[in-house]
Parts: sequence; structure tokens; C-alpha cells
Amino acid sequence: MAPRSPRIVALLSGPDQKGLVAKVSGWIFENGGNIIHADQHRDQEAGVFFQRVEWSIDDGSDPREMTSAFQACGDSLGMKTQVAISGQAPRVAIFVSKFDHCFHDLILRWKAGEFPCEIALVVSNHRNLEAASKSHGIPFHYIPVTKESKAEAEAQQLALLKQEDIGLVIMARYMQILSPIFLDTFGQPTINIHHSFLPAFAGARPYHQAHAKGVKLIGATAHYATPDLDQGPIIHQDVARISHRNSVEDLVRKGRDLEKMTLAQAVRWHLENRILVYDNKTVVFD
Amino acid sequence: MAPRSPRIVALLSGPDQKGLVAKVSGWIFENGGNIIHADQHRDQEAGVFFQRVEWSIDDGSDPREMTSAFQACGDSLGMKTQVAISGQAPRVAIFVSKFDHCFHDLILRWKAGEFPCEIALVVSNHRNLEAASKSHGIPFHYIPVTKESKAEAEAQQLALLKQEDIGLVIMARYMQILSPIFLDTFGQPTINIHHSFLPAFAGARPYHQAHAKGVKLIGATAHYATPDLDQGPIIHQDVARISHRNSVEDLVRKGRDLEKMTLAQAVRWHLENRILVYDNKTVVFD
Amino acid sequence: MAPRSPRIVALLSGPDQKGLVAKVSGWIFENGGNIIHADQHRDQEAGVFFQRVEWSIDDGSDPREMTSAFQACGDSLGMKTQVAISGQAPRVAIFVSKFDHCFHDLILRWKAGEFPCEIALVVSNHRNLEAASKSHGIPFHYIPVTKESKAEAEAQQLALLKQEDIGLVIMARYMQILSPIFLDTFGQPTINIHHSFLPAFAGARPYHQAHAKGVKLIGATAHYATPDLDQGPIIHQDVARISHRNSVEDLVRKGRDLEKMTLAQAVRWHLENRILVYDNKTVVFD
Amino acid sequence: MAPRSPRIVALLSGPDQKGLVAKVSGWIFENGGNIIHADQHRDQEAGVFFQRVEWSIDDGSDPREMTSAFQACGDSLGMKTQVAISGQAPRVAIFVSKFDHCFHDLILRWKAGEFPCEIALVVSNHRNLEAASKSHGIPFHYIPVTKESKAEAEAQQLALLKQEDIGLVIMARYMQILSPIFLDTFGQPTINIHHSFLPAFAGARPYHQAHAKGVKLIGATAHYATPDLDQGPIIHQDVARISHRNSVEDLVRKGRDLEKMTLAQAVRWHLENRILVYDNKTVVFD
Repeated sequence: MAPRSPRIVALLSGPDQKGLVAKVSGWIFENGGNIIHADQHRDQEAGVFFQRVEWSIDDGSDPREMTSAFQACGDSLGMKTQVAISGQAPRVAIFVSKFDHCFHDLILRWKAGEFPCEIALVVSNHRNLEAASKSHGIPFHYIPVTKESKAEAEAQQLALLKQEDIGLVIMARYMQILSPIFLDTFGQPTINIHHSFLPAFAGARPYHQAHAKGVKLIGATAHYATPDLDQGPIIHQDVARISHRNSVEDLVRKGRDLEKMTLAQAVRWHLENRILVYDNKTVVFD
Repeated sequence: MAPRSPRIVALLSGPDQKGLVAKVSGWIFENGGNIIHADQHRDQEAGVFFQRVEWSIDDGSDPREMTSAFQACGDSLGMKTQVAISGQAPRVAIFVSKFDHCFHDLILRWKAGEFPCEIALVVSNHRNLEAASKSHGIPFHYIPVTKESKAEAEAQQLALLKQEDIGLVIMARYMQILSPIFLDTFGQPTINIHHSFLPAFAGARPYHQAHAKGVKLIGATAHYATPDLDQGPIIHQDVARISHRNSVEDLVRKGRDLEKMTLAQAVRWHLENRILVYDNKTVVFD
Repeated sequence: MAPRSPRIVALLSGPDQKGLVAKVSGWIFENGGNIIHADQHRDQEAGVFFQRVEWSIDDGSDPREMTSAFQACGDSLGMKTQVAISGQAPRVAIFVSKFDHCFHDLILRWKAGEFPCEIALVVSNHRNLEAASKSHGIPFHYIPVTKESKAEAEAQQLALLKQEDIGLVIMARYMQILSPIFLDTFGQPTINIHHSFLPAFAGARPYHQAHAKGVKLIGATAHYATPDLDQGPIIHQDVARISHRNSVEDLVRKGRDLEKMTLAQAVRWHLENRILVYDNKTVVFD
Repeated sequence: MAPRSPRIVALLSGPDQKGLVAKVSGWIFENGGNIIHADQHRDQEAGVFFQRVEWSIDDGSDPREMTSAFQACGDSLGMKTQVAISGQAPRVAIFVSKFDHCFHDLILRWKAGEFPCEIALVVSNHRNLEAASKSHGIPFHYIPVTKESKAEAEAQQLALLKQEDIGLVIMARYMQILSPIFLDTFGQPTINIHHSFLPAFAGARPYHQAHAKGVKLIGATAHYATPDLDQGPIIHQDVARISHRNSVEDLVRKGRDLEKMTLAQAVRWHLENRILVYDNKTVVFD
């Protein structure tokens, strides 16, 4: 593909008011931008307006100046405004334990160009994926976690995330709960994959729960991590059909594909600045 | 289609033992039957064996005699045994309130020949579907239900079901809870459609619950009714994708299609003698 | 629901140019409209811009005047422009033969309020659905078609469509091919349901073709009818899983659900002014 | 899991005859086997019977002797009979070119224990995946193919397959057509993944064909390779939804997931001896 002119993506949300689309698109036009996509949604009951708008700018313009200027425009409209330069890849940390399917899947998709980000490091409480990380040229940090050492381990993780300027943590089947303090201190988005169709089967061993209940579909849910375990805003969900013939082991195997696909989709949407969080729910401009 | 020779379907379940398939198929062969389909499943953990076997019999044979004889065979093997003559249509009652989509769907499928049964009557706590029932030639029984009259209404329903020799009740969005006493006294299977992906969103107003939670898929669950509300053995489940754009009204609309399809599939499997209940779960030989 | 202020929906397409979104949304704002939804798409390769925009207008404004004014605005921008008053229900004719599942499905959805239209009449080359149509209060026109009488029959149909001011024909498994002359003379959209996943299995007896080929999924395709049989712009497609156990009759049964769902979705999108046709393909703003 | 007693899987097909199930299950019982699963299908139109039966044998028995004995039993019944010792892993060769997603997917699933086989070697007409193969400890054979060298290259491939005792070739997006002579000489199954919903879009560049046609779903098809290009017996197919927003590049990206999942499922079924080929179609006992 030929190199293309830089693009800017803005996400706005706030109280609905007349003429918002006109004001935003007028501002972009006057400042030399050309809208590529724009999508908006009004929550009629709550009276809230959501917009995602993506525009290309003239080759001569400075995208950083324009993002600052647009931020001011959004503020002046009284809207919560996030602006990003499309393709400005955030630095990402993958947290993983022993289950490696999501880990490999994320790395391979990243190498195939599916994720506009920089996978900067891997954090794990086990050494199993050290060699694999290094073979891909990704620094691997072994930080063991025990009941006693958990606070210390989180402090070490936080220092690392700060030092490495990480803008997104992906919990790729990381089998530790990140504490409210960790999430609060990190202050950046954290995406988790839970291996059930939430809110069903939250907590531990969801495939065992599903098998015991006799459901006919298993699911996976990618969501932003919040202090309430398995209760954060849902980004994406999918299901697969099972039958009485399937043992728990079969559910685990089928679930691996669900988890990989669901997490990867959520990560891609996040990296493409397609997600707005509102009222513990997500608006996904896909 | 040319008339075909009668068929017998048997469902067996019980403790696993060596040679069960050979014994059952040997018995059928020796008694002049020809196996059309046979399917079995072993729950390895529980050591339980499940089988569905369907066979055609010689034109000269009496299917009733053979079902009795096979019943004895199954008993002698120590297996729980149900035998049915394929195509011997059970008499069915539809319970419905005001929502009519499942009602119309069931009737039209039945008229199209999808259900091997006799829809013998409709019971409703409202008069809305009286004309529609009658236009299809199906007796309609208006039995209003209030908190005070519930016991009396159920007694009236039970008398009707007994008098009409009903072998299956379908709750096609019947907005009353059938009491444990009703279910126990009726003693025949009752299939209910719940408008969520159980165990998520059991109870009232599941679409409102789903909307509030921000899930990305809505579901429907067809299950046998038991005294524990929304906790009976699940027969079939399906889901549909929704987005932040969808209001509760959209969920209700999309859900109608899910409910129709899910209930119809469960009813067809039941009528084709494909379902075994075990440990509050179902084995569906599809 | 409370009565809501009138809404206008516009569909625009044409060569891309800078500031289109700003110009359109600015016009709407200046004319007292409030954008509810707006969605646009650019075909990067072809340099073509597509937009759907829906806005509410002040109670005092006259929606007809505004549609005329916007039409002029779109024309002045050099865009192909269609404007409709949301909720202004077009008059629809259903063409059907003997298979009745799509017919019943359309009527029941319409009665449930899913389709913003007026089903004005039914045309059939058989009498089978005469009573059903009349029971719903819909005029039924029996127009038999033979090889010899086809031209005459089409003339009769066209006169009827014109006289009844029909804006959409739905071919709900109408087993006759509408001639190029018919389609050209009618001049309004015609939606057909084909019972395969086009372009596979075009033409006659697609379920038999699918069975013979041994495919593992069957499909249905809703498309606008054009003079090239089964080659018109595809609106919607869906599939269902089949197995070697399924006979052609099973495919027909499963296909009925596919056909109903796929046709209904296409019709709803059409009636909600969500479809733009371009280059024998559709842009669906869903 | 505890070590389990050896199992035998037999696939039988042939003209239907009375008592087949009884004869087969009786033989197994008399020879000390215990049936774990048995599934059969009758093609009513063609009068052909298909069966898959899997049984465990006593620890003292020799599975090889029993397979020979059962082979003789099947022959005496006039049935085409294949018998395999479950878990006796065939040796597999992966053929691949530059697209590496199916390659990585197959290797990772194999390492995760999803495939009961031995991936013995990789053959490629490019050197791209040499390092990756070797890092997994799998011998890599670079065999370039040009128009002129094709016959020679195939001779080299065939020698390799014979020498390494390969029982299955997987074409994991191998961008060369294997000649009829190759397939005939190899004489063992070859599974190919085609990136469309066959029979639609056979041949080259199916995603471009799909984009040009404006279909709303893309597909993938895993099938046995035969001398007729893209016409071999279909094992598995799946689809994914696309929209007008998707460019050809998006189709390629979405298609990668489809191709991986569809090929992996077909390979697993094959390795579990679940597939019977008949009349250029497959019977899959899943």
C-alpha cells in the first residue's frame, strides 16, 4: 500500500445537544480535515450522545497540533473527548500464566500486522513462556506471585509498566487477580478474557460450572478489568455449541478457540480507538 | 412419500455394562426388526450408558406387541427404558398468554408437518388468541388466573389435560408460573421457553436485565419445567448478536425469533423421542 | 410510546469530495433538524462516498417541504439523493405461489409492527392462500400464469401495481420469473428470496443441487430482482449447518427458517431506507 | 488421566442388509470388546449403510490381532472396512508456501495435544518457514517448484513421503496444484483448505471474487484433494459475516481465522477416523 496521509480519530461523549454533528464536522472541514468515517449513537433514554470520527489531514499539517486543537474544541462543546493519531501505536504488556493459546495467538496476529501496537513486554508468574517470548524478541519478566508476595509483585509490575510507558495491559489468561490498587495505580486500560458467557459462570472454573449445569453453549467474554471481579464493561462475547458428548476437557479445548477469537477482536477494537465506556457498558463503533 | 413400515424408537439409560449394544441389537434382529439409526453415549465419569435406537418392523408384526416385548427386554437388562411407536402422535396442549409469536410459529410448523403430534387444545389466561385458535380448528380454553384463583385455575387445567389425554404441555410464553403441585400432578413433560441464555438472567424481565448489563449477545433457552423456576433440564439454547444501538424494544424483537426457533427445535426433538433426562441435564440424540 | 416528532432519512451517494459531511450536517442544523443517526462509507478504490443520515425536525416544520429542500441540497452537491419521511409507509405487494412459510412470516411480522409499510395486496398464480389473505383483510388477486398467458398476466399485474400505487414488490417464494420488461415497467424495487447461498446453486432446485454436491451448509439470499436471474444486488445472506444425515426434505425444512429470516431482514432494512445500490452491490447501513 | 485400555475404531460402508448392527456388535462382544461409541447412517435413497464403531479391548488382548480379525469380519459381511487402533498416530506432512497462519495454527494445536498424529515433516516451495519448522524440531524440506521443474519436484516429494511413511498430507495454503499423478501415486489422503464456500468461487483469488460479487458472507472449505481441482469431497465448511465496509484486505484477514478453524476441524475428524467418503461426498461421524 502507498503511504497515506496521517489520520486522527476522536471519541466524544456527553449530554446530547442540537447541532453536535454539524459543529464537529464543520470544525474538521475548516481545519483542513477530510472525514473518512463518522459514526454516532444517541442513548435516547439517558440523553447521551456518543461519536467516533476519523479524518485525514493535509500532508503539511502537524497531527499533534491538530489533536490538541480538537481536544480544545471538544472541551468547549462540553463533551468528554479522546483524540488519537491513527497508527500511533501504544505500547502493550501481555500478562500470562501457563495457558499459552491466547499468548501465541496475540503474538502471531501482531506479527501478521493485525494489531496497531507495540508489544513491549511479557509479564508472567511462571517461566513457561520465557523462551517463546524471547524467540519473538519480546522481553520477558518473570514475577512470581504468592499470597504473601502479591503486594510486592504488583509494585514490581507497576514500576515496570511505568518505566516502559505501557498504555494497555492484556490479561491473556493470567491466572491472578489484579488488585483494585493495581488497576487504580496503573490508570490505563486493562483487557481481560473470561472463559464464560458473563454474567453466567463468573469466578473460578467456568467450564466445570457449565458442564455441571448442562448448558448447550459455552462462551467467552472480553472485558475491561475493574475492581469488581468479572464485572467490568463487556467489550465482546461469543459462544460455541456443545453437546452431552463433550467432557469438560472438550469444553476446555473448544473454549480455547473462543477465548482466542474473542480476546483478539476486543484488542483490535481497542487499538483502533473504537470503544467508549459509559455506565459500565461499552459503545463499540465497529 | 410412500407409506412406510412402522418404526419403533427406544430410549435406554442405566449403569454401563459390557455387551449392551450387542444385546439390544441382537434382540431387535431376532425379533425381525431392522435398525435404522442407533446412537449411544457413555458418561465416562458417572459410568452411565444412554442409547437411542430406532428400528423398522415387518409389515406383519404388531408394533404394540413389540414395544411391550422390548420394554421387558430393557427391564431385564436393568435399564430405564422408554419405547414409542414412531409416528404415534402424542396429544399436546399449548399454554399461552398475550405474546403470540411462539403460538403462531408452533401452529404453522405443525400445519407444515414439522411436528408429529396432535395439537389438541390451547389454554390461555387471556382471550386474545381465541379467534386464532378457532380459525385453526383448535379448541381454546380461557382460564383466567389471579393470585386468589390460581389453585382453582390449575385444578381446572389439570382436569382438562387429563380428560383430553394430553401427553405434553408447551408453555409458549405463558406468563404464569405452574406450581410444583401442578407439575407433579400432571406427571407428563412440560416444555418452557425462557427468554435468556440460562443460567444468566433467570426470573423476570430478562431483556431488561441484559440491556442493563450491557451483554453483546441475547439468548433463549428451552427447558423442561420443574418445581425450581427456570432451573429445569436445558434442552436447547441459542443466541443472537446485539449492539449498543439496540434498545430494549430491539432486544424484544430480536428475541422473538430466537424464542420461536429455540422452542420449535426443542419440541421437535421431544416429539421425535430424542431426549433423555439425567441428573437435571439432557442427552439429546440429534 | 409517545408520539415522536417526524423524522427524515436521506441516502446520498456520489463522487467523494472534501467537506461533504460538514455540508450535509450544516444544512440540517441550519434548517432546524437534529441528527439522530448518521453513517457514511467511502469506497476508497472507487472514490465514491455513501451516506445515510436521519434527523428529527421541529414540530412546527413541514416534513414535505424539508424533503424537497434537502433534495435540492443533495442535487447541488452533485450527489444522487433519496429522501424519505420516516414512518411514511410505502404500499407493498406480496407475490407468492404455493409455498406459504415466507408469506405467513411476513404477514405476522407486519402485524407485530416490525415493518413500517402497508401490505396492500397479495398476487398469486394459485388460489391456495386466498382464504389466509382475506382472513388478514388483505386483498388477494389470483392471476394464473402459463407459458402462453405470461405476457398477459404480467400486464394484469402491472396494471394492478400501478392502480394500487405499490412501491415495493416482495417475491415470497413466487415460483415464476418476472420478465425484464415487467421489472423495467414496474420501475420500483422488487426483493426476491433465493434458497441458496448465491452465487452457489443459482437456478432451479438449489436444495437438490446442495444435497448432490455434499456441502455442509445451506444458505438463503435476499436480493433485488434484476433482469439477470439470481444475479441482482445481494441484500442479505445467511446459512445453516447440515450433515450427511439430512435428506433433501430436511434441507427444505431447515431452509424454510433461513428463507423467512433472511427475507424478513432484507425487507426491514429496505423499509427503513438503509440500503443503497451501487455497482450491482448493496451498501447496508445497519 | 489414567492410562486407558487400547481402543479400536472401525468404519464400514456398503449395501444395507438386515441385522448389520447386531452382527457387528455381536462380533465385538464375543471377542471381548466393549463398545464405547457406535453411530450409523443409512442413505435411504441409495440403500447404503455406513457405520463407525469404537470399542475398548481387554488389557490382555492384542489390538493388532483384533484389527485383522475384524477386517475379516467386515469383509465377510461384504462391507468396505477400515480398522484403526485409536491413538496409533499416523505420520503427517504439511505442505505450505508463504502464508503461514494455517501452518502455525496446526503446529500449535498439535503441541497442545489436539491432534493424534506425528507431524513428521514440512514441505515448502519457499524458505520462509524453515526456521519456524526447525524451532519446533520438525524437519523442513525446501523443494522449489517452477513450471519446468514441477514433475521433478513432485517426484522428489513423493520419494520423501514414501521414505518417511507419511499417511496424510495437509495442504496448509500450499499455493501449488498437486497433479493427478502425484495424488494417485501418493495413494493416501490429502486434505486441502480452499478459501471460499465451495462450490462458489472455486479457482484463484476467491476473496477478490467475493468482494466483486458483493456477497455478505465469506467462507472456507476443507476437502480431500482429488484430480478435479477444488472438487473433492467436502469435509467441513464455515462462513463469516462481512459488510460493504470490508475491503479485500479485510476479507483476507477475516478469512485467515476461518481457514485455520475449518482446516483444523477437518484434520481432527480425519485423525479420529470419523470420515467416510462415498460418492464424492463425506459422511462425518462427529
